[in-house]
Amino acid sequence: MRATVMHGAGDVRIETVPDARIVEPTDALLTVTQACICGSDLWPYKSMEPSAKGRRMGHEFIGVVEDVGAEVRTVKPGDLVVAPFAWSDGTCEFCRQGLQTSCLHGGWWGGDLDGGQGEAVRVPLADGTLVVLPVGRDDALMPSLLTLSDVMGTGHHAARTARVGPGKVVAVVGDGAVGLCGVLAARRLGAEQIILLGRHPARIALAREFGATDIVSERGEEAIERVRALTGGLGAHSVLECVGLGQATVTALSIVRPGGAVGRVGVPQDEAIPASVPTFFKNVTIAGGPAPARAYIPQLLPDVLEGRIQPGRVFDRVIDLDGVPDGYRAMDEREAIKVRIEF
Amino acid sequence: MRATVMHGAGDVRIETVPDARIVEPTDALLTVTQACICGSDLWPYKSMEPSAKGRRMGHEFIGVVEDVGAEVRTVKPGDLVVAPFAWSDGTCEFCRQGLQTSCLHGGWWGGDLDGGQGEAVRVPLADGTLVVLPVGRDDALMPSLLTLSDVMGTGHHAARTARVGPGKVVAVVGDGAVGLCGVLAARRLGAEQIILLGRHPARIALAREFGATDIVSERGEEAIERVRALTGGLGAHSVLECVGLGQATVTALSIVRPGGAVGRVGVPQDEAIPASVPTFFKNVTIAGGPAPARAYIPQLLPDVLEGRIQPGRVFDRVIDLDGVPDGYRAMDEREAIKVRIEF
Repeated sequence: MRATVMHGAGDVRIETVPDARIVEPTDALLTVTQACICGSDLWPYKSMEPSAKGRRMGHEFIGVVEDVGAEVRTVKPGDLVVAPFAWSDGTCEFCRQGLQTSCLHGGWWGGDLDGGQGEAVRVPLADGTLVVLPVGRDDALMPSLLTLSDVMGTGHHAARTARVGPGKVVAVVGDGAVGLCGVLAARRLGAEQIILLGRHPARIALAREFGATDIVSERGEEAIERVRALTGGLGAHSVLECVGLGQATVTALSIVRPGGAVGRVGVPQDEAIPASVPTFFKNVTIAGGPAPARAYIPQLLPDVLEGRIQPGRVFDRVIDLDGVPDGYRAMDEREAIKVRIEF
Repeated sequence: MRATVMHGAGDVRIETVPDARIVEPTDALLTVTQACICGSDLWPYKSMEPSAKGRRMGHEFIGVVEDVGAEVRTVKPGDLVVAPFAWSDGTCEFCRQGLQTSCLHGGWWGGDLDGGQGEAVRVPLADGTLVVLPVGRDDALMPSLLTLSDVMGTGHHAARTARVGPGKVVAVVGDGAVGLCGVLAARRLGAEQIILLGRHPARIALAREFGATDIVSERGEEAIERVRALTGGLGAHSVLECVGLGQATVTALSIVRPGGAVGRVGVPQDEAIPASVPTFFKNVTIAGGPAPARAYIPQLLPDVLEGRIQPGRVFDRVIDLDGVPDGYRAMDEREAIKVRIEF
């Protein structure tokens, strides 16, 4: 079968790899029908050391079940399923609390396992991991359903961990696909004011449609001053940090009001969290991490199926598997917000 | 009047200073009857640059109201009152939410204002700040009532922000007076297991009486391994960081389980919070800050008055005003847990 392999920074190839197959009795075998490229895929794309063996890529996908191991009970051949970006048993201490990204027996796609940016995937712990979709593989909702694998769940996690709720003043740091889904999640949770920090015209336009009430295109200290001005000098109750770079974290911690919360979902690129002392004196809560997308799929699915949210609008380019290397380039150069792969 | 003035590291003096007096119509004038020395007073005691003018000290005190300004409504001459370690208006956005340490018009004792380690104090914003005590100035409960000004409220804040609740596994980093009050607060909030990290025999003995179920006297990596072993390999749901030093923060973030929370009340001595990346991947919440002691006094007061908690047991030495310089020395050398000043 063919799949995406990253061999180093800027070096993404489509290669023939060993066919995915059932190994454990808890596995399912999927033919991938939809996948996409994640903002987090761009971190190794910028920095990965050259590797002859390479690293299998992709952790967001929808597929058709082709076969299942003897112990699989909840999915069967022919089912269309969505996979969250981490696989999990669904039964351990952490899964039972809805924190499947900390599953004691789970893990992440890619690396030595199959990745989603390929023709087929062996899914470990299929019963805990997969969710059956009640639509056909060519349904018009497919882009939005695909976002449940990661980006919409991640935006929702940022909003949840930043304690967004009715009447809250919210700021979203980052106008990538996650930030845009964060805007959508904040509106869905009842935020009163949603300030997006971003500068890219197409992204800003979509943010406004998703519910952003204010746009701050300044940077650094000027952005902080502007958010203060927009919030009566107090700052935001809830800040969604959707970037992961140090400057974005400084901004997030500077614009949150005393007693407020920062939900961080951008993978941190620094060893330490800055501004410990002012954060302490403001009694700011820092929360977030990898979204338990598996927990959120059942919560968000009805809103997608009934059209109340359309997170699939973050995809502004569609490619096939051979287009993946150029898809990475386009996202890295911010030519595309998020690239979807149709098989 | 006489009061405590710090002139530099290790240089604490009792001096004659201008008499406290009413300045604003919202002020009250107090004769101090009880005060104490705080662990946070030891930070400048270790590091303050020499200063001829010096800095007035003390932020935990009980006193008798001698006079009030024309606008004061809730206290009157003769009332015995406890002051939290920050003064606040009680009416601003943040006070209304119970975060009086971020009061838009409030501030901190000492510095250019009177401090609690002196014979009298001008209390700004008296209506928002002071709480009347329904006992006489020589009541046997005085030590425990005095802890409501800071240390018990701070331990409670650590527990609250670490999300302690019934059935939770709790770890407390630090065996100072705040850590000991953290143990008491955790038990009061229903924790199932309370692990104290500390090594001082007298403090450990008191911690056990306050409700600690396990003591970890190892340090660094060994302490982390021991807490893991005591928690089924998972770590604690709630960690109370009651020190403020970098190593204590590393320990706290290492022993909290995925999805858990660290409530930090030790004043941070470093610019950054370490371990950003593992904290992120575990979805750990970092919260806490200066305790809104003013909000907690009414919550904790009934338990003190009815004897259900005895936080005053953290005081293991009583001095008069002239004994304050030696009291600092004794706490700094860990000869005393916490020193109380009777006037």
